[in-house]
Amino acid sequence: MKLFDAAWAPSPRRVRIFLAEKGVEVERVLVDISKGEHLEAPYLAINPQRQIPALLLDDGRLIDDSYGICRYFEALHPNPALFGASAVEIGLVESWLRRIEHDGFQAVAMAFRNKVSVFKDRAVSGEWPPIPQIPELVERGRVMWTHFADVLDRQLTERQYLVEDRFTMADIAALVTIDFGIATRLPDPREGRPALARWHADASARPSASA
Amino acid sequence: MKLFDAAWAPSPRRVRIFLAEKGVEVERVLVDISKGEHLEAPYLAINPQRQIPALLLDDGRLIDDSYGICRYFEALHPNPALFGASAVEIGLVESWLRRIEHDGFQAVAMAFRNKVSVFKDRAVSGEWPPIPQIPELVERGRVMWTHFADVLDRQLTERQYLVEDRFTMADIAALVTIDFGIATRLPDPREGRPALARWHADASARPSASA
Repeated sequence: MKLFDAAWAPSPRRVRIFLAEKGVEVERVLVDISKGEHLEAPYLAINPQRQIPALLLDDGRLIDDSYGICRYFEALHPNPALFGASAVEIGLVESWLRRIEHDGFQAVAMAFRNKVSVFKDRAVSGEWPPIPQIPELVERGRVMWTHFADVLDRQLTERQYLVEDRFTMADIAALVTIDFGIATRLPDPREGRPALARWHADASARPSASA
Repeated sequence: MKLFDAAWAPSPRRVRIFLAEKGVEVERVLVDISKGEHLEAPYLAINPQRQIPALLLDDGRLIDDSYGICRYFEALHPNPALFGASAVEIGLVESWLRRIEHDGFQAVAMAFRNKVSVFKDRAVSGEWPPIPQIPELVERGRVMWTHFADVLDRQLTERQYLVEDRFTMADIAALVTIDFGIATRLPDPREGRPALARWHADASARPSASA
């Protein structure tokens, strides 16, 4: 089994934090995104979707999505249960993941990929025909980002972590999203949001955060 | 326990098909989206996110996302395992769900909500400050839709259903997305794509499809 990994990008980081929290070791192959290696033949032969991370299984099957990879390892190594232990927790974690991805992660991706020149005609992540940038989406992304940060802050005023006071995949997803937003120069969401700032410090202090 | 449900909209349909495949009955409350009931006080007191479906548990907690609700019931009623039985299946189903939502469902939502006048200043689903429509997104959505249909067709040329020849949540999600696209007048993706057309007929013939 081989995990195709990459520096800086948010989706591979999601898997690294998850595996560190599980204490699971996997053989890794580093793909250099800054050199465009994910767009070139050797990697395309492995994952035509061009995306990283991807998990190549020994039988040749490929799990080509960060959440797919994490759920695969959750099934093999159930503890700690990062996608939730009880049925209710499982439902709540998934609901937060969907909100974090749809409202938060998409906001950052939208603001970033429609602005930076390297993504000209590649405004959406993945394997696509040319998709031109739409500059108005930068502003839409910023509006969504601010509102998303308020929603997180409100939730974290009432509890230590996002779901049921226990560190879960929802916290991993939110941490990766917040750090991706800060790295791409969206307004720092910790400013003026004490609960979000406290949670971000807690999550960042875990050893997994630097995996 | 009460499931807040709505006619026509795609996300509640995802849950209805899932529950029908499981053979699980839940008390339902119908919210009339066509009258804007999901934007009014009684429903907002239940789900400030304004979205349907939502599952109100007996202890007052709310699972406010269609996938969250399905995963809750999957944990309570594991068979048939619609999110996958083995670890690999679980990983592959999740990967397909992410692709269907990100590439397919977002394409339809993008093309629809940035075009139709009822969504003026509500171009993104959920509870937001005003988000103006961006007409260029209608074309971006159409480009993504066509490409997404090609990806599905390619996958379904090799197998009966999307993952491992067994009907899963990935098929439910894809069916709901395809029908949502057709209902909102995107080009019919079955035309010129025989594998997709065959799969669509199979999935639509299941009793759950009309739940």
